[in-house]
Amino acid sequence: MQTLHVELGDRRYPIFIGSELDPQALLEPYIHGKQVMVVSNTTVAPLYLQHYINAIEALGKKVATCILPDGEKYKDIQHLNLIFDALLEAGFNRDCTVLALGGGVIGDMTGFASACFQRGVYFIQVPTTLLSQVDSSVGGKTGINHPLGKNMIGAFQQPQVVLADMAQLKTLPPRELSAGLAEVIKYALLGDVEFLTWLEMHMEALVAGDATLLAEAVYRSCAHKARIVANDEKEQGERALLNLGHTFGHAIESYLGYGEWLHGEAVATGMVMAADLSHRMGWISTEDLERTKKIILRAQLPIVCPKIPLEEFLAYMSHDKKVLNGQLRLVLMKSLGQAIITKEFDVELMKQAILANQA
Amino acid sequence: MQTLHVELGDRRYPIFIGSELDPQALLEPYIHGKQVMVVSNTTVAPLYLQHYINAIEALGKKVATCILPDGEKYKDIQHLNLIFDALLEAGFNRDCTVLALGGGVIGDMTGFASACFQRGVYFIQVPTTLLSQVDSSVGGKTGINHPLGKNMIGAFQQPQVVLADMAQLKTLPPRELSAGLAEVIKYALLGDVEFLTWLEMHMEALVAGDATLLAEAVYRSCAHKARIVANDEKEQGERALLNLGHTFGHAIESYLGYGEWLHGEAVATGMVMAADLSHRMGWISTEDLERTKKIILRAQLPIVCPKIPLEEFLAYMSHDKKVLNGQLRLVLMKSLGQAIITKEFDVELMKQAILANQA
Ligand SMILES: NC(=O)c1ccc[n+]([C@@H]2O[C@H](COP(=O)([O-])OP(=O)(O)OC[C@H]3O[C@@H](n4cnc5c(N)ncnc54)[C@H](O)[C@@H]3O)[C@@H](O)[C@H]2O)c1
Ligand SMILES: NC(=O)c1ccc[n+]([C@@H]2O[C@H](COP(=O)([O-])OP(=O)(O)OC[C@H]3O[C@@H](n4cnc5c(N)ncnc54)[C@H](O)[C@@H]3O)[C@@H](O)[C@H]2O)c1
Ligand SMILES: [Zn+2]
Ligand SMILES: [Zn+2]
Repeated sequence: MQTLHVELGDRRYPIFIGSELDPQALLEPYIHGKQVMVVSNTTVAPLYLQHYINAIEALGKKVATCILPDGEKYKDIQHLNLIFDALLEAGFNRDCTVLALGGGVIGDMTGFASACFQRGVYFIQVPTTLLSQVDSSVGGKTGINHPLGKNMIGAFQQPQVVLADMAQLKTLPPRELSAGLAEVIKYALLGDVEFLTWLEMHMEALVAGDATLLAEAVYRSCAHKARIVANDEKEQGERALLNLGHTFGHAIESYLGYGEWLHGEAVATGMVMAADLSHRMGWISTEDLERTKKIILRAQLPIVCPKIPLEEFLAYMSHDKKVLNGQLRLVLMKSLGQAIITKEFDVELMKQAILANQA
Repeated sequence: MQTLHVELGDRRYPIFIGSELDPQALLEPYIHGKQVMVVSNTTVAPLYLQHYINAIEALGKKVATCILPDGEKYKDIQHLNLIFDALLEAGFNRDCTVLALGGGVIGDMTGFASACFQRGVYFIQVPTTLLSQVDSSVGGKTGINHPLGKNMIGAFQQPQVVLADMAQLKTLPPRELSAGLAEVIKYALLGDVEFLTWLEMHMEALVAGDATLLAEAVYRSCAHKARIVANDEKEQGERALLNLGHTFGHAIESYLGYGEWLHGEAVATGMVMAADLSHRMGWISTEDLERTKKIILRAQLPIVCPKIPLEEFLAYMSHDKKVLNGQLRLVLMKSLGQAIITKEFDVELMKQAILANQA
């Protein structure tokens, strides 16, 4: 087991990363009060819920559960309210702990509920997808969707502790594992070429679910995000680097309709487009671009998207949050493994980069 | 006009207190971005909304509005969501400002919405009831009710600025003005006997709506709350003093059913019970108790509540949040104008104090 600390002053917290972690021992110091609400969904609960209930009850705590339907489309205010219902029906007070057991959807909703219940109670994350382990478990962003926009309503809420257990990834559908790998690759491309080399050595084993290697990948990914987030908790500057591939990816997701492609899949192709534009700008070499495509392909991720009319692609891109005062800012690679946030790019080259990576 | 600063480090903000304040000049430095959402209700909007729209538009800002139905029963998640709808339908982004124009209900809901929208945007309070001017505009507590409990869901969200305009109190129903005076009297009783003397000099003029005197009362009240809150933002200790009269009052409100008595009315009688118990404990004199009752009566507030079976009264009291680990803690007066939080009181004397102040 490895331990990583997210350094946020008095809200500093550890992420425990390993396989077959012991929740009883690891959670004990971080559960406040005597009441624990475990929030999960109908897919994850049958697999792992009982294990956590047993561990928490063995600590002498009262456990209640709230099982939500599975899916991004339930990440809304009505289903958030079900968590409040469960907390109040269980008679929980402001000295309780709320634990998220599931992927990013459950993590985001549960974290937000814990931020609002009684104006803030204790929160623990047990992310069960690779994506949530390497991404949503660090940074404190929580929230829900609104019909008019994703993640429009939420709070910054840091957990007390995160348990990232690789053994739980065994049941994850392969497509979901690959989607998580897209974000892993992102950390390498945006700031760590040595990590890219490491991924090139191990990609097939990662895709096959090797727990030791996955743990290492999660550790390195979280370390990158933790460092960036600690420098820029409220997303004023550097944190935007984490959006490498996301502005292009956002356009793909929006055009195809959310749910068609997984987020990680769209980000994968988006990173190819960002790399392609960085190449056209003369910042990375042909070899660098090919390395980028190859590692993404080996993670079983798409490097081209379906044909999307350019005008629509651009319109969706500019709906993205990285548009500051109407001027599009992109995360590009100044060199392989070194991303920058910039509005100094050639729009014609950007169009070429988009078109070159469509089917 | 007087200005009071609530000292909260980098979230320090001013409260402007006066009559016929100029919103254009006063708000200008505190509106962030170009988009302003004004949230109000169907009672307050016809009276004051246009005045604020004009002032904000004169500053070159885009104004949108969200008018909620009037009443505590609409302080729920469904109506909170209407604020999010309005923000997103207006196309507002994270660089917007949300202004609450109304009493405590509108202030609490709007503040909470501003805390959650895009994980936090700028918030301005224009409290239009005396109660919200002296109470909810200081301290940053925001939130909504749940069918299973009041103010169960919320956030700590500090405003950029508060405008407390006494001219707006002219339209306030007299009963609501008196309810606000209950909280004003509370500050005197819990920490400022000199303020009590001042109130004794001016109570009839305050009840009649004298703007200069009301402004002074609001200033002194906010100064007390601001000092206490600055010492104890997250309600760990001293802030509980602000609950003088509230544990008893809570039982009265709960028994009668919310909406029968105004909160301030229940607190008024609750303060009489707290004073009565403090007297029975030998802490304040008969004269002190009489002064307490008299100032409350002169504010047109009730000093006795309807007959409530003792068992039920006690049950409701212990549902109150001041119960820590099952042990009831009360805010009582060690001497007139000096409250303490204590569990060292005689339960039999408490019962006598409750029964002695029922009709
Ligand atoms: N808060 C943040 O910083 C942040 C960062 C990235 C993404 N997100 C959010 O995370 C969400 C996406 O997260 P996700 O990719 O984890 O999706 P998800 O939570 O929908 O999980 C994907 C699927 O895998 C299932 N699943 C989860 N764990 C499993 C397991 N161990 N075995 C079998 N099946 C399992 C889920 O039930 C679901 O069907 C989005 O809502 C996104 O907005 C948040
Ligand atoms: N956040 C806090 O710290 C805090 C503190 C105390 C109370 N509160 C909350 O505040 C609420 C009570 O506030 P309230 O007493 O202001 O009630 P309120 O907001 O319901 O206002 C009382 C009535 O007066 C009307 N009104 C408001 N301003 C008016 C004006 N200028 N002229 C005519 N009518 C006017 C309102 O429409 C309403 O009908 C409760 O929900 C309570 O939980 C919050
Ligand atoms: Zn992502
Ligand atoms: Zn009160």
